[in-house]
Amino acid sequence: MIIQLKKETKPQEIKDFIKYLENKGYQIKDASSQDLTLLGVIGDTSKLDIGNILSFSIVEEAHRIATPFKQVSRSFHPLDTVVEVKGIKIGGNNPLFIIGGPCSVETCDLLKETAIFVKESGAKGLRGGAYKPRTSPYAFQGLGTIGVEYLNTVSNEVGIITVSEIMSSDKIPEFEKNIDIFQVGARNMQNYELLKALGKTKAPILLKRGFSNTIEEWLMSAEYIIASGNPNVILCERGIRTFETYTRNTLDISVIPLIKKLTHLPIIIDPSHATGKRDLVEAVSLASIAAGCDGLIIEVHPHPEVAYSDGAQTINYDSFKTLMKKATKIAKVIGRGV
Amino acid sequence: MIIQLKKETKPQEIKDFIKYLENKGYQIKDASSQDLTLLGVIGDTSKLDIGNILSFSIVEEAHRIATPFKQVSRSFHPLDTVVEVKGIKIGGNNPLFIIGGPCSVETCDLLKETAIFVKESGAKGLRGGAYKPRTSPYAFQGLGTIGVEYLNTVSNEVGIITVSEIMSSDKIPEFEKNIDIFQVGARNMQNYELLKALGKTKAPILLKRGFSNTIEEWLMSAEYIIASGNPNVILCERGIRTFETYTRNTLDISVIPLIKKLTHLPIIIDPSHATGKRDLVEAVSLASIAAGCDGLIIEVHPHPEVAYSDGAQTINYDSFKTLMKKATKIAKVIGRGV
Amino acid sequence: MIIQLKKETKPQEIKDFIKYLENKGYQIKDASSQDLTLLGVIGDTSKLDIGNILSFSIVEEAHRIATPFKQVSRSFHPLDTVVEVKGIKIGGNNPLFIIGGPCSVETCDLLKETAIFVKESGAKGLRGGAYKPRTSPYAFQGLGTIGVEYLNTVSNEVGIITVSEIMSSDKIPEFEKNIDIFQVGARNMQNYELLKALGKTKAPILLKRGFSNTIEEWLMSAEYIIASGNPNVILCERGIRTFETYTRNTLDISVIPLIKKLTHLPIIIDPSHATGKRDLVEAVSLASIAAGCDGLIIEVHPHPEVAYSDGAQTINYDSFKTLMKKATKIAKVIGRGV
Amino acid sequence: MIIQLKKETKPQEIKDFIKYLENKGYQIKDASSQDLTLLGVIGDTSKLDIGNILSFSIVEEAHRIATPFKQVSRSFHPLDTVVEVKGIKIGGNNPLFIIGGPCSVETCDLLKETAIFVKESGAKGLRGGAYKPRTSPYAFQGLGTIGVEYLNTVSNEVGIITVSEIMSSDKIPEFEKNIDIFQVGARNMQNYELLKALGKTKAPILLKRGFSNTIEEWLMSAEYIIASGNPNVILCERGIRTFETYTRNTLDISVIPLIKKLTHLPIIIDPSHATGKRDLVEAVSLASIAAGCDGLIIEVHPHPEVAYSDGAQTINYDSFKTLMKKATKIAKVIGRGV
Repeated sequence: MIIQLKKETKPQEIKDFIKYLENKGYQIKDASSQDLTLLGVIGDTSKLDIGNILSFSIVEEAHRIATPFKQVSRSFHPLDTVVEVKGIKIGGNNPLFIIGGPCSVETCDLLKETAIFVKESGAKGLRGGAYKPRTSPYAFQGLGTIGVEYLNTVSNEVGIITVSEIMSSDKIPEFEKNIDIFQVGARNMQNYELLKALGKTKAPILLKRGFSNTIEEWLMSAEYIIASGNPNVILCERGIRTFETYTRNTLDISVIPLIKKLTHLPIIIDPSHATGKRDLVEAVSLASIAAGCDGLIIEVHPHPEVAYSDGAQTINYDSFKTLMKKATKIAKVIGRGV
Repeated sequence: MIIQLKKETKPQEIKDFIKYLENKGYQIKDASSQDLTLLGVIGDTSKLDIGNILSFSIVEEAHRIATPFKQVSRSFHPLDTVVEVKGIKIGGNNPLFIIGGPCSVETCDLLKETAIFVKESGAKGLRGGAYKPRTSPYAFQGLGTIGVEYLNTVSNEVGIITVSEIMSSDKIPEFEKNIDIFQVGARNMQNYELLKALGKTKAPILLKRGFSNTIEEWLMSAEYIIASGNPNVILCERGIRTFETYTRNTLDISVIPLIKKLTHLPIIIDPSHATGKRDLVEAVSLASIAAGCDGLIIEVHPHPEVAYSDGAQTINYDSFKTLMKKATKIAKVIGRGV
Repeated sequence: MIIQLKKETKPQEIKDFIKYLENKGYQIKDASSQDLTLLGVIGDTSKLDIGNILSFSIVEEAHRIATPFKQVSRSFHPLDTVVEVKGIKIGGNNPLFIIGGPCSVETCDLLKETAIFVKESGAKGLRGGAYKPRTSPYAFQGLGTIGVEYLNTVSNEVGIITVSEIMSSDKIPEFEKNIDIFQVGARNMQNYELLKALGKTKAPILLKRGFSNTIEEWLMSAEYIIASGNPNVILCERGIRTFETYTRNTLDISVIPLIKKLTHLPIIIDPSHATGKRDLVEAVSLASIAAGCDGLIIEVHPHPEVAYSDGAQTINYDSFKTLMKKATKIAKVIGRGV
Repeated sequence: MIIQLKKETKPQEIKDFIKYLENKGYQIKDASSQDLTLLGVIGDTSKLDIGNILSFSIVEEAHRIATPFKQVSRSFHPLDTVVEVKGIKIGGNNPLFIIGGPCSVETCDLLKETAIFVKESGAKGLRGGAYKPRTSPYAFQGLGTIGVEYLNTVSNEVGIITVSEIMSSDKIPEFEKNIDIFQVGARNMQNYELLKALGKTKAPILLKRGFSNTIEEWLMSAEYIIASGNPNVILCERGIRTFETYTRNTLDISVIPLIKKLTHLPIIIDPSHATGKRDLVEAVSLASIAAGCDGLIIEVHPHPEVAYSDGAQTINYDSFKTLMKKATKIAKVIGRGV
């Protein structure tokens, strides 16, 4: 961390401040010139609160040089993390992990039908929300426990990995019994109590990026889970909020190579929420594969227009089949299986 | 709601779609011209999911005309909501409700000293975080239960209303025993499980706006609490995320008159988080009062530079005293007490 | 356009307002219910100023149903626009139009060397800035006229199409003499005086999207050029400003299929400005091709670290060669040449 | 500037890089630890291009410590700049400079009537657009030269200072003959050719902040004008683009105290564009005065509903009169005249 002191700071104040930092176990290097008083703080500054430093009235500015995240960082763990679920490997150079399925779990039969279809088309994961974070209290809130149980039933019958959103820590036992991959939704990315609780499980966590969070904040949320003891984190970009209104969100495509550089974690893309429009899902999916993602999570429904939620961004069976064929070709060009 | 159908839609498809809507209990009015097929949907469209409408392949666009929130709306409840806490009235034309205190509860003595000071300066509320949502898992996470108890002790001894952040529903009993006003932080504004649980209490809820949420989303979160049975909602604007880096957030000052127009709820401003810099707190506080807010929540600490958190935006006693004097004068000009 | 009137509007006021609109040549359709007064305005509303409608005190809200752009719209001109420059066709199903070259024109020799290299690698265009919009008045502002002339010289000697940014209309004659494709930079996207002047030329215009402009605003700027008489517009997405600081901008990848749907114009991607980091250029370029773009504009320099500007996002010869090989493969998968 | 080199950088590469910087006239201070190689660059780094530094492959990151602006900085020029126009002083502790008038100049009679009214109400400036930057090429583009001449006529007859937007440098002679204060609109804030041309005049320049520009970019644009020779710059905040759709823009109120701290220039607020809604103009105006602005620029029209442009945010005579009375009271509380 580099700290710039105010021009008018007195020598004694500088001395006291340096002592304060040294008492916290840091080594201080003076990088001042005649114009600026600059101090370099050496040591594990990930534990040093920049807000605390800025609160000193003699401090003009403070810049963090080292990243605040540690265990998610590629420099801490150079090899790719590969998350294994029921024998399927996600991340590394393993085949793409494609997840299809409805926004919300509706009936058990429909879920099973969809699971069979997406599996036959090449997907290895089945998505379906049982607890739904809806903007309006008057909108359909999901089937709850029964939806979670349907997912388990279908998973066993069809042989497919399930992904579903968990919204509060009291549902962890229910999820541990029924669900393979626990999704943390965008709105809960900084629900730290939930992250800490999930960090105490061994379940693979699909951590969605908050719709206005920076990459650093996202990685700090992953750090919460890992620091609590659970290394099985899969990152998921689902589009960020921008001024654009033609699309529901804006997919940050450059996140893919960037995450690969900064961290060792797998990264999956959600083209359905990223665009909000089914016409755009295919193009954005192919783009994500070309950019090097480790998988996709796509909303698929036999009849999107009667889906309980998110129909506008849900593709039907034919579209999913076509998408999977093209995805396989693009993946092959970049040396990746599906 | 106005629905525009695609040009190529066939008469039978239009008929079927109209029947679908009528079956949901809506009346349909045709507003088409030779260029556009437009349908007006009449009835309580707050229960109609716009995503569901958009999922029909024949739908080009859909615009909500009526607001999706109901119980928070001024048209539903024309008179100002006044939240009463231990005899103090917040909102309406009542005196401004000013809250001061540290970011985090540190020691009981320090909290008491600060409480006495802010009360003597004219504040009626004491803030202090016991559970802290920190970006880093390695940063100070708050004193927890003991901090909550300190707040209660100080409240009783000094005679001041306490405000503290609640981050998960399992802490509700602890808060009901110890805290006067429960704060929902910006990161949890869309933690719907928490909102629903708080809606089942009778506690006054200070609902902060998420740092990238629209006013409509914020009001929908208030709607969650009220629809669950708790009408005691106080809105709190604490700055939104923008590109600007000189400030931590950007205060949306126009929210004040806008909230007064759209809703009947009290609105309080947090100039500390809105700016992130103590030098800017006074100017922004005075501006908020001039714009018509119902109160302020300000971070105050006797020695900001040794505060456990948020020191950079925390003002000291002298600054708070000066601010309160100026605030009183501005409030008087607009016909409001402090 | 759908206009919602305030609840308390009197019948006579509604009548007067309808007459006002009818006098402007519109037909009015009443879509009111007992709760809402809604009027549908029928006719060419692209000429109706929404701000003017909103200025009536009886108007609650107004929603534009038809798009405000006309000549850029695919519904106005269903076939793809193909811009032809010196025999090279851009857009439609023609091979990708790849442009390489330095951020700024430096020396004529260096420019020629780079032109030869990018052409050999498969690019058909050469970029190079002679007038540079720099944030700081103290930064290198470009070679000006001499730079423009170097581009012409190199174009003739090497046989390559040149692209360079024009910042004011008084340089049009100079550009007409020397440059093949005139670039309008992001900062000038809404410099309407410049757009109108360019609309009076016949030159192909590469219109960059402003860094915080919506797609609609971008298309309205294209509409300015076309409405002034010049149909040769090529759109260029170069990333939008978001909160993210790891990248210079955020590429809006979904713009590619969206532009194809909304308009008939070619769309080119600038991965260099979109990311600001050379490590990310390749992944984002491949993604753009997979999503269906019509070309790329990439900053290439033999020694990025001594480039006069934008070195951080400039790739060197080896990287460009590798990128072109991979680009060719991805393009082939989606049935496109390079 | 602090430069962090990559871990794997070799000693010889560091040596060469230091020599490169020393050759540019900078002194280098080593602030490295065992984990990080950090170099402090000492000298006038406002002339050092950060992009150039980042282009070296051995550079991991570079942070500017000193501000990139110089002549606009308060540390360069500690006293407030006071811009004087026809005997009226703007900035410093001088009375607030309030500007009223229509969005667009319409007829000479109407302009004169409005000028008389706003002057009687206490305003010292008259606004009116003759050249209008409209999103649509089909919208009213302003009266042009004749509008500029009307402003001059009215200014002379009524005795009021005129403010009007200039959109291209070829209109400078026309403006120098007719207009007192030249406004640079938000869309042209980074039209550097225009800024440089205005820097060669002696006219007071009202420089609006671009709707998505940072404060630093805004100040760099002011630096362009001053560095070209014209110190008469007045900054104008008019709201920034955010996700919020209830308002046209979001006023950044904290800009007021921040600008006062960072620079010596006067700052004026435009509550009309900042909100886009006439109901919000008064509250936001009073807030701006309480926060310490040097003036306001407000859209006023006798009949907003028939104004040629921006009617929705234009207030009528009665509202302006009321606003001026309240403004005077708030200004008095903070020790300022109107």
